[in-house]
Amino acid sequence: MSKHLMSQFDADLSDIRSRLLEMGGKVEKMITDSMKSLVERNSDLANRTIDYDHEINRLEVEIDERCLEVLALRQPTARDLRFITLALKIVTDLERIGDQCRNIAKRARELNDEPPLKPYIDLPRMAVIAASMVTEALDAFVRSDDQLAYAVCRRDSEVDLLNDQIQRELLTYMIEDASTISRAIKVTAIAKCLERVADHATNVAEMVIFMVKGKDIRHTAAL
Amino acid sequence: MSKHLMSQFDADLSDIRSRLLEMGGKVEKMITDSMKSLVERNSDLANRTIDYDHEINRLEVEIDERCLEVLALRQPTARDLRFITLALKIVTDLERIGDQCRNIAKRARELNDEPPLKPYIDLPRMAVIAASMVTEALDAFVRSDDQLAYAVCRRDSEVDLLNDQIQRELLTYMIEDASTISRAIKVTAIAKCLERVADHATNVAEMVIFMVKGKDIRHTAAL
Repeated sequence: MSKHLMSQFDADLSDIRSRLLEMGGKVEKMITDSMKSLVERNSDLANRTIDYDHEINRLEVEIDERCLEVLALRQPTARDLRFITLALKIVTDLERIGDQCRNIAKRARELNDEPPLKPYIDLPRMAVIAASMVTEALDAFVRSDDQLAYAVCRRDSEVDLLNDQIQRELLTYMIEDASTISRAIKVTAIAKCLERVADHATNVAEMVIFMVKGKDIRHTAAL
Repeated sequence: MSKHLMSQFDADLSDIRSRLLEMGGKVEKMITDSMKSLVERNSDLANRTIDYDHEINRLEVEIDERCLEVLALRQPTARDLRFITLALKIVTDLERIGDQCRNIAKRARELNDEPPLKPYIDLPRMAVIAASMVTEALDAFVRSDDQLAYAVCRRDSEVDLLNDQIQRELLTYMIEDASTISRAIKVTAIAKCLERVADHATNVAEMVIFMVKGKDIRHTAAL
């Protein structure tokens, strides 16, 4: 590859990298805003968050197309090829995180129309962890940092524990007072959305470990 | 491209296609077996299904590597490039369906150790639809059949409805008799796993529509 082509190719990779980070930042904003719309009972923000999902979808298509373009024009091999194909997989996870946030905002909007059930404590905590997992999984990808990726995988169990705790707590609400059931179910649905956000971040992190190590660590119990 | 190279390339594509279908068949078997282990209270089958997930994971890595190899060696463009990069995304969905089936088998194993809660009627129905959605989404992919892919997307709401119905029904069990709670929660978890299987099939179908139409139909409400 000539020097000119080489630097052009580097520019392409760095473009993909920065667009992915941009998408990651926007997805993180969706997590924060959807939760804020719930905690602050702000249905306007919930509506804006639901609309914002279009922006995430647009970025998915844009990055996908950019990756295909680079694959077709530059015909990368080895490490670069692995990087671009992984970017293609990661945008899919990011887009699905956006879908989960849209679901959270929809449930928030419904809950905002009813009397509050209880102050939200574990749920925002869960959201903070899930959002940081998304950021760190992407950082791990752009820096090829497998140690950071391992750290993301380990945090998934924190989110799972919080989710179990929330499910159990809300079940006692439902059993003690049947009038809370419809609201409690919506709150548990939000917890499950956050759990899925964390799952997507974990999936990304596992793929990064695989990319860095170049062998199958995606499916071992040693994480 | 020379005639020899061309036919070699066709053989590569057809190899990827048949491996994906093989993986799809095995994933479908996992759906069926995990549900059978629940309905027939067969914990041996549950254990075998949990182990079988390794086979799905192995196929994921194998197909991924095969796709990278073809990308590097044949440097496909346009339609073929789109096909291979989509295959890369689809294996990820198939692998995650395998994870869901492993979760179903784990819950089944636990439920088999306790007295039966109620006969399973809607759950197997949900599984049959979800499994056929997986098969049809893959068929749509290998045949580039957008009409079939649209049909898969439409069936997702059937699964969602069954899931809602199951969640509501089990909630009444829990409220009427607190001793059913732990079992009912496991059954609802299984319903949610099946819902996620159907979601993955829908994701695949949406990506197929995008591949065939070549524009963004992944994110419209018109499905």
